Order: sequence, then structure tokens, then C-alpha cells
Amino acid sequence: MDKVGELSAFGRSKSYPDALKDIHWISGDFTNPSSLATAVAGCDTVFHLVTATTPVSSNMDKIGDVQSNVVSTLHLLEACREKQVRRIIFISSGGTIYGMPEQIPTSENTPLNPITAYGISKMAIEKYLTLYEYLYGIECRVLRVANPYGPYQSAVRNQGVVAAFLARALEGKPVEIWGNGSIIRDYIYVNDVVEALELAAVHNGPSRTFNIGSGQGHSIHEIVKAIEKVLELSIEVQQFDGRKVDVPVSILDISLAANELLWRPRTSLLNGLTQTSNWMREIIRR
Amino acid sequence: MDKVGELSAFGRSKSYPDALKDIHWISGDFTNPSSLATAVAGCDTVFHLVTATTPVSSNMDKIGDVQSNVVSTLHLLEACREKQVRRIIFISSGGTIYGMPEQIPTSENTPLNPITAYGISKMAIEKYLTLYEYLYGIECRVLRVANPYGPYQSAVRNQGVVAAFLARALEGKPVEIWGNGSIIRDYIYVNDVVEALELAAVHNGPSRTFNIGSGQGHSIHEIVKAIEKVLELSIEVQQFDGRKVDVPVSILDISLAANELLWRPRTSLLNGLTQTSNWMREIIRR
Repeated sequence: MDKVGELSAFGRSKSYPDALKDIHWISGDFTNPSSLATAVAGCDTVFHLVTATTPVSSNMDKIGDVQSNVVSTLHLLEACREKQVRRIIFISSGGTIYGMPEQIPTSENTPLNPITAYGISKMAIEKYLTLYEYLYGIECRVLRVANPYGPYQSAVRNQGVVAAFLARALEGKPVEIWGNGSIIRDYIYVNDVVEALELAAVHNGPSRTFNIGSGQGHSIHEIVKAIEKVLELSIEVQQFDGRKVDVPVSILDISLAANELLWRPRTSLLNGLTQTSNWMREIIRR
Repeated sequence: MDKVGELSAFGRSKSYPDALKDIHWISGDFTNPSSLATAVAGCDTVFHLVTATTPVSSNMDKIGDVQSNVVSTLHLLEACREKQVRRIIFISSGGTIYGMPEQIPTSENTPLNPITAYGISKMAIEKYLTLYEYLYGIECRVLRVANPYGPYQSAVRNQGVVAAFLARALEGKPVEIWGNGSIIRDYIYVNDVVEALELAAVHNGPSRTFNIGSGQGHSIHEIVKAIEKVLELSIEVQQFDGRKVDVPVSILDISLAANELLWRPRTSLLNGLTQTSNWMREIIRR
């Protein structure tokens, strides 16, 4: 953008137009190189938040995953180079990039052994960002975000268990889980992620890659219990067979972000779930 | 193949037909999925030795590099899955996958920070091989080969300095180097690489990825001196500006291959250069 601080957003369509009503909107498809070039023209800083797949869908179509995520990102990087973008901040995946982690909580220098094509694509994109900084001086920052949740997460697009569970519970339907509910994840409220993005945009320290999570682990069962508490109702759970894409435990070590970005998660799980359920009730009411 | 030990080779065309005269040949293009399916049908073990780019060319066309190497390899892996191939052995790049290595000599668990799209593609392919073993049980072994040289390496396709230098020297032309000649590489004779491939095909230990090199470093200047000694002539050197794709030092730690594959390089640099120059003289004479 021409003016410092001016914000544009790019996407196929606005899922929630009200949320973006004060923001300059550019309609386009991430897989279309000329859309991307138009979108980044005049931008100083680009936040790359797009993913075209989920961990489950990526393993079913690995080539489609590479094309829609990696190749499209390379088109974005070429556009950024051509349009002289100064910095790119990329949302990577703290939950899938480490695979079965060698240490818990997992720090950024743990070996990357993803067990999904989704995680492999995120890893490749991280490396291309580093390459573009090395070759062309485009600054990069990577946030390996754990399991984000909060308002505007879609319950119908498999974007996360919190949205899915809340929607089912508010409809009085049973929630569906894969495995016995013991799988542990690190849940991080969306506003905390937004704060990390803002800090990454102005960061000047030596590191390029930061874990962004709560640093705490919660089992699926604990999430169900917490939602029951927040909604003050009881939830029926339907169990299905465990899935190969799910690692048993994912908890991020967030000390690097604390030290270098001066970032800390501010929102407790119960507080975040309350805010998310309030938003979802509002949406349902309309 | 139906019979154990029977060998087929696949490629666009035979560069040196005499070298493959006793081997079942399948003509096809690596970027054509149906060619690949035909090629692997009936195979128990597949050696994936194809690369469609060089480190330099990959940085000039990163999307072409992903398409020709990563996407084509995913087509190969799908064909292997469909045709029930038992094991895949992949030649990765010991010289580019580590980037600026954090330790010299470099062991397999050193962080991967490639500074070429070529190295990023090799890394992604390694991870997809691991994923296919995890999801579908196709066994994989990865050999991160240093700078291989020897007979049948082409001097005209930028495949390596040894072939290029020998060819120029035998033609009485000056050799061309980028930088001041101080760049250090780990040179490994092709027959030693072939032995590692054979051992990887029958390996049953816990590791999947092995460095394959001499474990010794030689500067470009030392290679020129060694070739002068072998050819008994003096070589003129033309210097050009250093290139961003060249890391200053690459030497592999080969102790894992020694311990698990019981592999060791057998050919000294002078011996290997002598055999290579004998072959090249023979080719020129024809």
C-alpha cells in the first residue's frame, strides 16, 4: 500500500463481510499468478495466511497439495520480488511440521519429520522464504502456529475441533472424535496469533522462525469438558477409529517468541472458548 | 521385474548405449506419469536417480524445478504404491541439502538449510519418501551423495567440475572456475556410489538416510593440480566471479554409512581421476 499502516486483504470471497468492512478488499484466487501480482503491488509487508488444504486432504491428494500451496507460494514470492515487497510473514504449522516430535514441548530447532503432505509443503515454503531472503533480500518471518481457534473459524470446513465441537454442541448434536480422546494439542486464541503477526512485522532480531502456541497441552476430552463448562450443557461424544495423520501429542515451546518478539499468549482457554462461543451464538442467531 | 536380480533402466535416451547394452531399457520421460507406471510395473526395488535441474538452473526457475523434480517424484511414488514396489532408494544431494552447514564434516542430523531450490526439492522428496513409508509401508533409503565423478559423467551438461575440467584440459583449453578456487568439496568416485546403492537396497538397520562421500575435502585448486598430475600437463585457469549458489565448504561425515551399511569409499582421488581420464580419452578417440 502507498500509505504506511494501510491494510488490504486478498481472497476468493469474504466469509464474514462484516469483519472486513473497513479494509480494502481485493478479490482473487491464490492459485492465479496475475491475481497475486495485482494484490501485492504497492505493499511494503505481506502476510501470507493462505492454505488450500488440510492435513487430511493433503495426504489424499499430495500433488494437488504441492500445486495449490507450494507452487502458488512461489508465484507469490516472484510477485513480491517483482513488486519489491520488503517483508513477508508466513503462517506455518506448529502442529504438523515436527511430525512425531523428538521433544515435548517442541522447540524450533527440533528436526522436522512431518507425517502429512500438508506439513511437508509448509516446510518447503519456509525454506523458499529463507532462499528469497538469501538471494534477493526479501525479509521473512515464519510463525509456526499451534492449533488456533476463535471467532471466524469455520465449523464446516474442518478448520479445527473447537469450532466443530462448539457448533455441534450449540445445535444439540453429538461431537465426533477420532481415537479415544487422549490426543493432546496446543490451542491458541486467534487474537494472540494476530498480536504475534503484528510483532513479527516489526521484529529486527536474528531469528526467522517462531513457535506460536499457548505452551500448554489439552486432550480432546479436556476440550469437550471445557466447552461443557462454558456452554453449561453436557455434550455427547461419538468415537471413531484413530487417524494416521494425528500425532499423539503436540505442545510448542514458545520461549523464543517470548524472548525475541516479546510475545506472550494472553487468553486462557476458558476465556477464549467463552469469546468464541459468544460469537458463534451471535452468528447462529442471525 | 519378474526375476530376482533382473535389472531395467528407464530414461529419455541412452547417453552411452554401450554401457547399458546388457540391460533391459525402457524409454520414457520422467515427467510423464504413464511412462513411470509402465517402468515400475513388476519391480521389487526402484532406484530413483533422476534430477531434471542443476543447483544453478533451479534458482533461475524455481517453479520449473518443483514441477520437474518434486511433482514428478510424487507421480513416481504413486506408481510405486499402485504397482506394489517394496523399496525405493533415492539419490539426494549431500552437497546442497545442508546449505551453509553448521558443522564440518557434516552429519545427517545437521539442520537442513539449502540455499538453492535444487536442495529444497531434494529435501521435500526425502520427506515424501518418509511419508510413503509411514502411510503405505514402501521402504525407503536415501543416499545424500557428495560430488560424484567418474566415467559417463557428461562434460557438456554441467554435471560436475571433474568432467568439465578433464574435458577442457584434454582439449588443451583453459578451465573456468567461479571464485578464487578455494571452494572445498567432497568428491566421490562413481563406483563407490554404486556400491552404496547396492548396500542400501539390502539394508535392514534403523536409519533411512546416509551421507555418501569420501569424507575428505579438496579445493578447486587441488582438483586442478590433481588433474595436471594425472594428465601430465599444465592447465590454464580462468577465474570468474563467485556464485551465490556455492557454499564455501562441503565435506560429509560418512560414519553412519560405515557403521550401518558397512560401506567405505575405496577409490582414492588420484586413482579415480586416472580411471575417469582413461575413459574420457577413449571417448574422445572414437
